[in-house]
Amino acid sequence: MKIGFVGLGRMGTGMARNLLAAGHNLSLYNRTREKAEALAGDAAHVVNTPAEAARDAEAVVTMLADDQAVSAVTFGPDGLSSTLAKGTLHISCSTISTDFSRQLTERHRASGQIHVAAPVFGRPEAAAAKKLLVILAGAPDALERVRPIADAIGRQTFVAGHEPWQANALKLAGNFMIASMLEAFSEAFALMRKSGVPEQQFLDVMSELFGSPIYKNYGSLIVDRRFDPAGFALQLGFKDVRLALEAARETATPMPFASILRDHFLNAVAHGQHDLDWSSLALVSARNAGLPEH
Amino acid sequence: MKIGFVGLGRMGTGMARNLLAAGHNLSLYNRTREKAEALAGDAAHVVNTPAEAARDAEAVVTMLADDQAVSAVTFGPDGLSSTLAKGTLHISCSTISTDFSRQLTERHRASGQIHVAAPVFGRPEAAAAKKLLVILAGAPDALERVRPIADAIGRQTFVAGHEPWQANALKLAGNFMIASMLEAFSEAFALMRKSGVPEQQFLDVMSELFGSPIYKNYGSLIVDRRFDPAGFALQLGFKDVRLALEAARETATPMPFASILRDHFLNAVAHGQHDLDWSSLALVSARNAGLPEH
Amino acid sequence: MKIGFVGLGRMGTGMARNLLAAGHNLSLYNRTREKAEALAGDAAHVVNTPAEAARDAEAVVTMLADDQAVSAVTFGPDGLSSTLAKGTLHISCSTISTDFSRQLTERHRASGQIHVAAPVFGRPEAAAAKKLLVILAGAPDALERVRPIADAIGRQTFVAGHEPWQANALKLAGNFMIASMLEAFSEAFALMRKSGVPEQQFLDVMSELFGSPIYKNYGSLIVDRRFDPAGFALQLGFKDVRLALEAARETATPMPFASILRDHFLNAVAHGQHDLDWSSLALVSARNAGLPEH
Amino acid sequence: MKIGFVGLGRMGTGMARNLLAAGHNLSLYNRTREKAEALAGDAAHVVNTPAEAARDAEAVVTMLADDQAVSAVTFGPDGLSSTLAKGTLHISCSTISTDFSRQLTERHRASGQIHVAAPVFGRPEAAAAKKLLVILAGAPDALERVRPIADAIGRQTFVAGHEPWQANALKLAGNFMIASMLEAFSEAFALMRKSGVPEQQFLDVMSELFGSPIYKNYGSLIVDRRFDPAGFALQLGFKDVRLALEAARETATPMPFASILRDHFLNAVAHGQHDLDWSSLALVSARNAGLPEH
Repeated sequence: MKIGFVGLGRMGTGMARNLLAAGHNLSLYNRTREKAEALAGDAAHVVNTPAEAARDAEAVVTMLADDQAVSAVTFGPDGLSSTLAKGTLHISCSTISTDFSRQLTERHRASGQIHVAAPVFGRPEAAAAKKLLVILAGAPDALERVRPIADAIGRQTFVAGHEPWQANALKLAGNFMIASMLEAFSEAFALMRKSGVPEQQFLDVMSELFGSPIYKNYGSLIVDRRFDPAGFALQLGFKDVRLALEAARETATPMPFASILRDHFLNAVAHGQHDLDWSSLALVSARNAGLPEH
Repeated sequence: MKIGFVGLGRMGTGMARNLLAAGHNLSLYNRTREKAEALAGDAAHVVNTPAEAARDAEAVVTMLADDQAVSAVTFGPDGLSSTLAKGTLHISCSTISTDFSRQLTERHRASGQIHVAAPVFGRPEAAAAKKLLVILAGAPDALERVRPIADAIGRQTFVAGHEPWQANALKLAGNFMIASMLEAFSEAFALMRKSGVPEQQFLDVMSELFGSPIYKNYGSLIVDRRFDPAGFALQLGFKDVRLALEAARETATPMPFASILRDHFLNAVAHGQHDLDWSSLALVSARNAGLPEH
Repeated sequence: MKIGFVGLGRMGTGMARNLLAAGHNLSLYNRTREKAEALAGDAAHVVNTPAEAARDAEAVVTMLADDQAVSAVTFGPDGLSSTLAKGTLHISCSTISTDFSRQLTERHRASGQIHVAAPVFGRPEAAAAKKLLVILAGAPDALERVRPIADAIGRQTFVAGHEPWQANALKLAGNFMIASMLEAFSEAFALMRKSGVPEQQFLDVMSELFGSPIYKNYGSLIVDRRFDPAGFALQLGFKDVRLALEAARETATPMPFASILRDHFLNAVAHGQHDLDWSSLALVSARNAGLPEH
Repeated sequence: MKIGFVGLGRMGTGMARNLLAAGHNLSLYNRTREKAEALAGDAAHVVNTPAEAARDAEAVVTMLADDQAVSAVTFGPDGLSSTLAKGTLHISCSTISTDFSRQLTERHRASGQIHVAAPVFGRPEAAAAKKLLVILAGAPDALERVRPIADAIGRQTFVAGHEPWQANALKLAGNFMIASMLEAFSEAFALMRKSGVPEQQFLDVMSELFGSPIYKNYGSLIVDRRFDPAGFALQLGFKDVRLALEAARETATPMPFASILRDHFLNAVAHGQHDLDWSSLALVSARNAGLPEH
């Protein structure tokens, strides 16, 4: 397939490599061109605008930071929507709001284009190793056409529903689950420290109890205070919790754990933790208990 | 070793069987004698009081429901403390409060007896299959003597500290982690239902994302509304969260997730869910969102 | 003074009448013209657009429901900004977001116009009786010019700061205080009902203890279940709490009470209470405790 | 009437003076005898034990810090229950738990004595000025006998129900209302500070809006950071919130505001604020927002 690919950050680069490995042809666009050029080759050529990336493509994939970025490359000057052919696909892999996802769907539909949401779970290493979990949502026939692309970038694909925003809702709910685990760990670690129980000991028990690599990995970040450099920045985690709360508001769903998370992320931001890893949420519970951060 | 064993409920029975299998001799006591008799044999004889179980024993193990039950068999009429020889061990495996655990330690010490806390993680099937996680705390030399017993009943043993109550604190923090997972699931499922995403689909993604049997098993209970009969009754889960909050109060540790759990368990109790499985906590978030329970 | 007045709902009508009584000349605009015509007279003539209301005025006052309404009459087609003379005032009395308030300030400044925020506390009866509390914020010399208008509509005027949005922040914080009182009442009433203490008895004690008409009045609405017709609709109260939370996010201020309010308002919305009085928040705590609503 | 009076702290002293002024005869007991002797006179003689205070009395009044203190003077060695005549009254004015209140009722009943609960609202100055609010609960005929005493110490008397513990529940709910006001103020003040709005300005608006001396007084304590010496110590306020939560648990009433209060009081305790005034709760929200305490 001839595919436009917009957004070659740490996640996008891994995904694009795997699409190339699967035999697809890519038109690559990235704001800082160097990152795109690192991938250039016979099947991959670098273009100057999102519009060029979408021209003559059967589908265009976007992997960007947030609503604003996706909006800019899609509908801004030289946006991909200006050249994307009728009947072709915009596969949005970014973690965006459900509200903006609905706008994407409507505006593409008005132009005869098709929006499919395909947010992914996994960190950059998982993207590089083709181990992402891909969540699809959109019209059934469009999903069929997206399957090969999803298979090329992930280890497993799930379908959330026929409306693209449903995949975004599921992605936000999943990140809420991880953030909740971080907060639960944070409170439990604070209790352990004040009880004189070594944090590592508690982590070892929890790793064994849950049998989950996610528990083990995030728990280790907290125990070792490895918050810098961030694997996933606190301000991005905070953004995702806010988007989950927005999705909850739209559907009238009270989510008190998410509300606590919001308050604790605000506390973290008020203490300058924007750029630390989001597992540094643990510092909030430590401070609340009067514990030194280290 | 010659061991007294008090409390032959579903957990205790599995543990006692594994002690017998490891070659220990047991004096068995249970309030309803039938459960003890089911285990009787060459190496296991049934006695009529906790005091008899402790007589001439090198250690006595208790596996009971709560503080009150442990207090009764230990210090009540014909309690085990009345016959337990100086220098021998009371190994308390029950999930009890940190405050009562400290009382146990002090009162046994005053009698020249030794208290070791050995709470366990695992359901009755894990107890039967010798797959419990055993958390020990107590004086180092006493822990050495408990090791063979811990090894006989569990798949892995951890040491929380030198004070018995520290093991109880760790156990309560662990149950808080599981309860937090239940609440996070509950809120996320409510959001999914109101977004038209099938619950099973969300569960499949989470099972894959966390890679944890606990997520998969508890998530399935919620999706299938398999709350009755209870694997672990809601009122017991509520009790453990309250004990975690008590431990948090004693150590001045704010735990806002635990506070939310407390409020939702109260909501569940107000709606008659005492005897359902504690995963029925999910009904609270469903009701809060105006969803039908089924 | 020659004043344009936009927005003649229940609040605006009372305010406009008091401006007329103080001897000012008004150009009146309201979307449904009838409400404006009810005030027409020698000193008050009705116009067809916000732009006409602002033409030749020394100041234009807006009293509208929300950001969207203020944005439309200000910057939309025939908006007041198109005719408001340089150096003249837009006095915004509506309860709007701090973010939109800053936008108002900047866009008016770019047109050489001056934005003053003047949100008010008080219900329609207070507006009619000239008993509002008026909160001003803006440039000091502009505030001097607004004083006579504030004095004409309220019983007392306060200055929040030099930036208009600060008055909006104060207004949102004040509504948060009232909403918090409603929630505290709701939980206490639930506890009283479940304790067999008559709600009226508790209210009588609280009225005497706090000595506040607001406690007495809102408490009575709850005890008597007088939620319909709404004095202040729940969905408007919910909006204000959301705006308070937004202001809190912008300034990195955790507000856990506001988060609880948000969740309970969502619960209320999920149970169809949008149009009831916001004191019907009490139904949420009643339901949570398993109590019948009446 | 001949009345025993036990507990002559700052509250009790004012109450006893007013009983004397109303013409009653008092037998005074206080742990530190000096405080009792300060009241001695023709109608007031000092005794050495609670038992002596209750001997030959028609009623005995207790005004003490907590459950433990009331339990000790009532049922401890030389406790008042040992001499209180059958059919006479124990009027308990202390803020105690609903659970202990029920125990008082039952144990007195078993001895043929009558328990009436009569907790009061008001600070020491109000006690001295006979301005307390008195909340009664008990058997109707017993309440009739208590009326003259209630009238002698307070400005208004309310009846909560026929079961003494109901008055204690009402008192705890009332203190919860005040604590909720403190927390709401705390969060709003933090928002104002981060918005650059002077705290005093916000307080002036709230004082006018609510028209309540309690808002004005507590708000001033916070604005002026007058936390030491404490009018009402934070640890006592924390105790009352915990007792309210216990009453809520007994009746299965979720109270999320009370849960937040509990967490913030714990935070305060973890930061050494036990002995400051309970309005210093505001320091928690300030810290959470990254603000300096002063």
